[in-house]
Amino acid sequence: MKIAVIGTGGVGRTLAAALATLGHEVAVGTRSVENTLARTEPDVFGNPPYSQWQQEHTDIQLLPFAEAGAFGEIVLNATNGANSLTALEAVGAENLDGKVLLDVALPLDLSQGMPPTLTVANTDSLAEQIQRTYPEAKVVKSLNSVAFPVMVDPSRVPGEHSVFVAGDHEDAKAAVRSLLEGFGWPTGAIIDLGGITGARGAEMYSRLYFTLAGVLDTFDFNIKVVRGA
Amino acid sequence: MKIAVIGTGGVGRTLAAALATLGHEVAVGTRSVENTLARTEPDVFGNPPYSQWQQEHTDIQLLPFAEAGAFGEIVLNATNGANSLTALEAVGAENLDGKVLLDVALPLDLSQGMPPTLTVANTDSLAEQIQRTYPEAKVVKSLNSVAFPVMVDPSRVPGEHSVFVAGDHEDAKAAVRSLLEGFGWPTGAIIDLGGITGARGAEMYSRLYFTLAGVLDTFDFNIKVVRGA
Repeated sequence: MKIAVIGTGGVGRTLAAALATLGHEVAVGTRSVENTLARTEPDVFGNPPYSQWQQEHTDIQLLPFAEAGAFGEIVLNATNGANSLTALEAVGAENLDGKVLLDVALPLDLSQGMPPTLTVANTDSLAEQIQRTYPEAKVVKSLNSVAFPVMVDPSRVPGEHSVFVAGDHEDAKAAVRSLLEGFGWPTGAIIDLGGITGARGAEMYSRLYFTLAGVLDTFDFNIKVVRGA
Repeated sequence: MKIAVIGTGGVGRTLAAALATLGHEVAVGTRSVENTLARTEPDVFGNPPYSQWQQEHTDIQLLPFAEAGAFGEIVLNATNGANSLTALEAVGAENLDGKVLLDVALPLDLSQGMPPTLTVANTDSLAEQIQRTYPEAKVVKSLNSVAFPVMVDPSRVPGEHSVFVAGDHEDAKAAVRSLLEGFGWPTGAIIDLGGITGARGAEMYSRLYFTLAGVLDTFDFNIKVVRGA
């Protein structure tokens, strides 16, 4: 399947590489191919320059946002959540309409340090904003509750643990489930939170998630939902 | 130990009964003893009238807020979170200063139905508001992440699963850990989220919690934090 990954950071690269390994055709979308390839320093999160990563992933194309969007049968939003709406505007509604739009982003405000606050929460969520902005896209929120290495390799955390999907379109959620299973998530670990407003819970959990990452001193963890009798 | 439980609803009654069973002297605090005992109908959540519950728990005193506060060596806030600051004002700073104040409340806005939004979130939390209002009290947030039957009986959910504590006072957190262990929470299940701002994560998790309760169709569940290698 042709998949567009919007965003060149650690999340985008990790998802792109894992999808390519699984046999998908992958394009990464960026605002400016030239600027992205011109960088020679690690980014603020310590990721090496994209050009260096590119050399190890020559099967993955780097395209401008709109071209990547046009390429993808499925589009993944792996941008910084605070900038996602701006990035998706550059991808363009014409390249999103009718498609599965898997939103893994968190609308983090890191200006006050860790743990971050959210730029939208409680009465709305990033995924809802995206779905409202692109009513013809089929937005599914998922994977935002774990660190990017765990997204594509749940075995980094022992045993079965949970991942969430939320969205208004059942066919799109089925397609995302399929991707998750490809990454190694067991069917029983995938919990359907219902419609796209379910994304609010998944996004707001991030405050507990980042607090836990701090006290556990690792991002290699997750939560398992355990049900009573 | 003498423990005051502020709040006469399902949470307060469940905590009061469990604490009395464990051998503590318990007083429940209410705005008006007369009004609380005069009610003959179930409350909005379907709890039977307090007077009926009282007959089955004759060892538990019902006292006005301030008298309950004065009685307790430890004070539990089990009020409706949206009204907690008003209720604690009636308890009085003089009855909270220097004491462990275990806050189990969630600041829920149920006006739009389930799952509820929060009256405070993201950049603040109820527990932080309480700590700021009563700087001499030792506020600990805990137990708010599970339903009240699970609070006092974690075995309702199979295996080990997690409960959180957050607060600025180590001695107060140790006292709360002790209460939790009394309820049956294993030591290793209690995760310290650090200072009182850690309460923000525990409270914001409630959106995911109520969403999960809806899709699982039960409140008998919890999350287990699973750490990688």
